[in-house]
Amino acid sequence: MNSTYRNCSELILSEITQSLTSISEEQVMTLVSEIEKAEKVFVVGVGRVLLALQTFVKRLNHLGIPAYYVGQLDEPAITEKDLLIVGSGSGESVVPVAITKVAEKYHPRIVHIGSNMHSTVTSMSVAQVRIPCRTKLGLEDEISSSQPMSSLFEQSLMLLLDTVSLMLVRKNDIHLPDLWKQHANLE
Amino acid sequence: MNSTYRNCSELILSEITQSLTSISEEQVMTLVSEIEKAEKVFVVGVGRVLLALQTFVKRLNHLGIPAYYVGQLDEPAITEKDLLIVGSGSGESVVPVAITKVAEKYHPRIVHIGSNMHSTVTSMSVAQVRIPCRTKLGLEDEISSSQPMSSLFEQSLMLLLDTVSLMLVRKNDIHLPDLWKQHANLE
Amino acid sequence: MNSTYRNCSELILSEITQSLTSISEEQVMTLVSEIEKAEKVFVVGVGRVLLALQTFVKRLNHLGIPAYYVGQLDEPAITEKDLLIVGSGSGESVVPVAITKVAEKYHPRIVHIGSNMHSTVTSMSVAQVRIPCRTKLGLEDEISSSQPMSSLFEQSLMLLLDTVSLMLVRKNDIHLPDLWKQHANLE
Amino acid sequence: MNSTYRNCSELILSEITQSLTSISEEQVMTLVSEIEKAEKVFVVGVGRVLLALQTFVKRLNHLGIPAYYVGQLDEPAITEKDLLIVGSGSGESVVPVAITKVAEKYHPRIVHIGSNMHSTVTSMSVAQVRIPCRTKLGLEDEISSSQPMSSLFEQSLMLLLDTVSLMLVRKNDIHLPDLWKQHANLE
Repeated sequence: MNSTYRNCSELILSEITQSLTSISEEQVMTLVSEIEKAEKVFVVGVGRVLLALQTFVKRLNHLGIPAYYVGQLDEPAITEKDLLIVGSGSGESVVPVAITKVAEKYHPRIVHIGSNMHSTVTSMSVAQVRIPCRTKLGLEDEISSSQPMSSLFEQSLMLLLDTVSLMLVRKNDIHLPDLWKQHANLE
Repeated sequence: MNSTYRNCSELILSEITQSLTSISEEQVMTLVSEIEKAEKVFVVGVGRVLLALQTFVKRLNHLGIPAYYVGQLDEPAITEKDLLIVGSGSGESVVPVAITKVAEKYHPRIVHIGSNMHSTVTSMSVAQVRIPCRTKLGLEDEISSSQPMSSLFEQSLMLLLDTVSLMLVRKNDIHLPDLWKQHANLE
Repeated sequence: MNSTYRNCSELILSEITQSLTSISEEQVMTLVSEIEKAEKVFVVGVGRVLLALQTFVKRLNHLGIPAYYVGQLDEPAITEKDLLIVGSGSGESVVPVAITKVAEKYHPRIVHIGSNMHSTVTSMSVAQVRIPCRTKLGLEDEISSSQPMSSLFEQSLMLLLDTVSLMLVRKNDIHLPDLWKQHANLE
Repeated sequence: MNSTYRNCSELILSEITQSLTSISEEQVMTLVSEIEKAEKVFVVGVGRVLLALQTFVKRLNHLGIPAYYVGQLDEPAITEKDLLIVGSGSGESVVPVAITKVAEKYHPRIVHIGSNMHSTVTSMSVAQVRIPCRTKLGLEDEISSSQPMSSLFEQSLMLLLDTVSLMLVRKNDIHLPDLWKQHANLE
């Protein structure tokens, strides 16, 4: 197989273009609106999905929106005024399912970002954003991918969330250079 | 400004296409070759750049290549047989510069992935991969971006490294389903 | 109340002395023996308990024993040759319970370190080490503590595990200065 | 050598008693006072020292004091109203030294907790707490330890900081059960 950078990067660009294009405008608008209504945003996920969610937590804090991943040192108590974003392709990952079940007791808004929308996490969520990429569970209508494991899902998740950040910046007319003021300066 | 999902995601896709396309085939080939020669791979970076590097550490471990971020709990001693990948757009970030200076004493191979190639980190590296995106330091020939802060650099870094993973998979004819065997099963 | 350093540190020293003294010699010997038999050691816990477990993961790696916390970037698959140490005072913490249930499918040895030994985690474990300190669940025979929350449990856990490390060093006649060879040198 | 739990735990208890007892009342009082004056508290350190500092960050947040480790996802910018606690036995660890040098530009109060008080970090600090334990640098008047590496320093640091938490609780007459309200409830 062709293993040049040019060939492989074009393949990945083509896959993520297909993936991002297939996401519903309406579902993303709902996610943006849930973020704007929330007092605090929590995210939960595992592995590379968690890393993608963490890039979003960092950016939300820059935008002045208090955000935490479940397990973060200064994680506060969740309340009914908060939003929990659950990132799980299959919607059946053990820790996200367990945490979402606990969260239900405190009545936050719950949004599932995943691939399989017939899942335990989906059933506990008030809104969903579907990224139709391969995950551990094979789904019929998924976008096929030549990449290892769930790479395409993770890439799409990171780019979807950065798109949400850009939408928030534009809706609120945020002056980009101002963002550095909230940024850690001990680097 | 247009803040629809469609518009914003197209803008991001267009920016990352431009960014990934501008990366040198030869420089990536050298990075791949350095990874293949290395006994262990270490990465260092901060913030969202570190998160992007960590997605790569996780995937390299799946591919059977021992990889660590500086600060990881089981981080071993670095030796002259190892590779240190320094992710820093400006090449002047405090922690990456400080760690790279310490690393030099143990003579690993050092590769700088960044934007500014007239930097302290670059001067300590044997090879470089340039992603010509905006970072904190303004550079003349950078790709312009409408995204907040260094988002385009971070996205490009994650996708570049996933491209490197795909190149490694193809060069070594790795059977993708086998990768799950090395994957954490406590999820 | 007396808030001098002298008074408060004496109180803490007195509490941890009582706590460590109350731990069963036989139970710790069993834990040491399980660690020696294991191919790899995994730990799971949350919050400050996780931080205490992570200090142990770091030291076990220095001692040449491969150790990981659940969620660590290079976490491998667990097998029946491995040991899972579950740190949970109540034995009912959501994530530890969920992870232990998944782990059971792969048949590792499971040891519960906690306070409440009539718990879900205990029922899945082959061995236990009881630290009789206050945790969220009130227990009748617990050591009383004037410290906030579960501090005494967390302190006792860290010191118990460092005691286990010292026992391993002595049993194997490890030359202490040699330990630095496995230590990260990029600090 | 005697490798029973009883013998090893008594040895460790004896060492930490000696270590905690040797810390200056006045120096700890100054640290407490700096924490009370600070708008936000930042901590920096590496390895097991960082883990000990992180247990403190978690507890300070419970006490209602905003605290962050350098590198935390939601780390804000440091200002002259903040406190930076640098944990480094030798006072020469690369990352703490580099971060402290950057911090100086923003004029926070800086406190060094360490063993060697003739160090680079000490010279940048306005106050110090000395724990006279062995670290990498051999010091003449240190407390001797039979434990591996810098274990005694790390244990003493964690217990010192928990003592500080208890002092804060007592000085402010905090009702302990109230602390759980600030505690993460997604566990």
